[in-house]
Amino acid sequence: MAQKLTLKKIAQDLNVSISTVSKALRDSHEISVETRDKIKDYAKKYNYKPNNIALSLKNQKTKKIGIIIPEIVHHFFATVISGIEKVANEKGYQVIICLSGESFDKEVVNMDMLANGSIDGFIMSLSKETLERQDFHHLREVLNQGMPIVMFDRVVDSIACDKIIIDDVAAAQSATDFLLRKGKKNLGIISTVDYVNVGKLRTQGFKDALLKRGIKFKESSVLRIEDAENCTKSIEKFLKQGNYDGVVAVNELFAVTASKALKKMGKSIPDDVAIIAFTDGMLSKYASPTLTTIGQKGEDMGGLAAAKLIERLESKHDMEESYETVIVKTSLVERESTP
Amino acid sequence: MAQKLTLKKIAQDLNVSISTVSKALRDSHEISVETRDKIKDYAKKYNYKPNNIALSLKNQKTKKIGIIIPEIVHHFFATVISGIEKVANEKGYQVIICLSGESFDKEVVNMDMLANGSIDGFIMSLSKETLERQDFHHLREVLNQGMPIVMFDRVVDSIACDKIIIDDVAAAQSATDFLLRKGKKNLGIISTVDYVNVGKLRTQGFKDALLKRGIKFKESSVLRIEDAENCTKSIEKFLKQGNYDGVVAVNELFAVTASKALKKMGKSIPDDVAIIAFTDGMLSKYASPTLTTIGQKGEDMGGLAAAKLIERLESKHDMEESYETVIVKTSLVERESTP
Repeated sequence: MAQKLTLKKIAQDLNVSISTVSKALRDSHEISVETRDKIKDYAKKYNYKPNNIALSLKNQKTKKIGIIIPEIVHHFFATVISGIEKVANEKGYQVIICLSGESFDKEVVNMDMLANGSIDGFIMSLSKETLERQDFHHLREVLNQGMPIVMFDRVVDSIACDKIIIDDVAAAQSATDFLLRKGKKNLGIISTVDYVNVGKLRTQGFKDALLKRGIKFKESSVLRIEDAENCTKSIEKFLKQGNYDGVVAVNELFAVTASKALKKMGKSIPDDVAIIAFTDGMLSKYASPTLTTIGQKGEDMGGLAAAKLIERLESKHDMEESYETVIVKTSLVERESTP
Repeated sequence: MAQKLTLKKIAQDLNVSISTVSKALRDSHEISVETRDKIKDYAKKYNYKPNNIALSLKNQKTKKIGIIIPEIVHHFFATVISGIEKVANEKGYQVIICLSGESFDKEVVNMDMLANGSIDGFIMSLSKETLERQDFHHLREVLNQGMPIVMFDRVVDSIACDKIIIDDVAAAQSATDFLLRKGKKNLGIISTVDYVNVGKLRTQGFKDALLKRGIKFKESSVLRIEDAENCTKSIEKFLKQGNYDGVVAVNELFAVTASKALKKMGKSIPDDVAIIAFTDGMLSKYASPTLTTIGQKGEDMGGLAAAKLIERLESKHDMEESYETVIVKTSLVERESTP
């Protein structure tokens, strides 16, 4: 039985990156003519079928939506999917999920696979690596061929498409201000590295809230975490050095890790240190103390994303010129981790 | 643009169930000749393309694996997917995920969609509704056409395919025995309804452990939960009535709900009441008290399922006669919820 030639296989055989193959096959000028020709000749020789979105668009609709997300361990993404499923199913669409695992290559490969006639459009949140590389050629190409994308949460300004986000700056600002109003004076934030847009924006909101009240912002009061799976040590160190009485965490996993670390240090929550987190998920509800959070309304975001995508898929007019960014309202849920 | 006729659409148009359409198109004798003919004529008239697995199998492999699971909010399923992704990616396979949302119809529709040439084989855990109905025609059909399935966790004996499970009876027995050895005497179990095989088996293990030590088993010491999303009230009532000093919970969500209820009743954990749960996930690690659990090794199960499926896909021999059931070893992780 013949094995289908894939982007990955070509990349391996020619010892180049998947991204290079993907770009070369689309005649990108980022790739030298020599490399482009080599890759295209190879693909032709072994009868590689390049992306045929245009072809599938001319034929019948699949009534399927493709979701590409970084991972599903975070409760937030699970709730977004639940919102997408609800609206999509109601409107007669089926949902296919692929995970990038925070990898750029996997995102490119999955997108290529699904765009090949399997689905009508994408709902996606970008991988960390994609955001770090700032390489969005795979999104551009899909859009150029007329297949719609709705992005949520981890979005990028430079891609013109519909987007569903929360106002991360404003939400972080109100979370920070909430701690200040409760009498906390020395605040720290546990965030992600800056190339993850939501981390950067929430750090900005934290800073804005301090400056607005005339409190000096210190660069040392920001912890930027790269590897969420191994964050315990760096969070412990950060909390010891800063001796904060209030902590903002950009997700609930960072928050419960901080909570554990503080208890280990003999601090009482919320009296010695108050904590406020983003994402109102299972951990926030069942951790002890339970966590005060900014609810990101994942299910609403998913529902809106699905409705937007389906509207675009079924519109008889050309909507191309009018992309929309929907900002979903967040809510502050008070629990035991704040006074 | 023509809209593709789907199983669901035919069912709606003819006012019959999806299952009836699915069976009629496969000439099932469960469906009357009259209904079968009506459905087949309709499908033919509107050019419905029935499942063409046989056709796609003759052509090239897709190097894709389809996963169908009930939901992704439970950490266990997230870890299984992570295990599948790792092994599949290593071996050059891509992974597509669909959710049944515990619905039989969605399981049938998703399976039909993926089996239509999108993937080479399935890894799946059945929906509650499928287990309740005991209707497995969609699995039989896929298998009959030569497409392999590996089932995990929620499996059924009557389907001949490879299976990855834990020994649920033995694991529940050892969990129960652990509480008895710690001096607890009056035990209750929070389980699922009996048609969910893992719930039934774990309840059996609980019973076996008691009988082995000559303790009388009372039917009233089992709570069988139907709707996991609204289980708080019934758990509270169960714990009040039973006045237990030890509780076994078949998943961590039931366990943290019980823990909250007990604290509300003024009970101290583990002194007044000890708790042991299945699934060693995020909730168990971060709840307070942290939970003693039976680790189900979701990542191992996923990895084994992927390896088994790929072995079967790539085997040159006919493996048909030798299905295997792999029993993954569980481990007991001691934490604060037991003495």
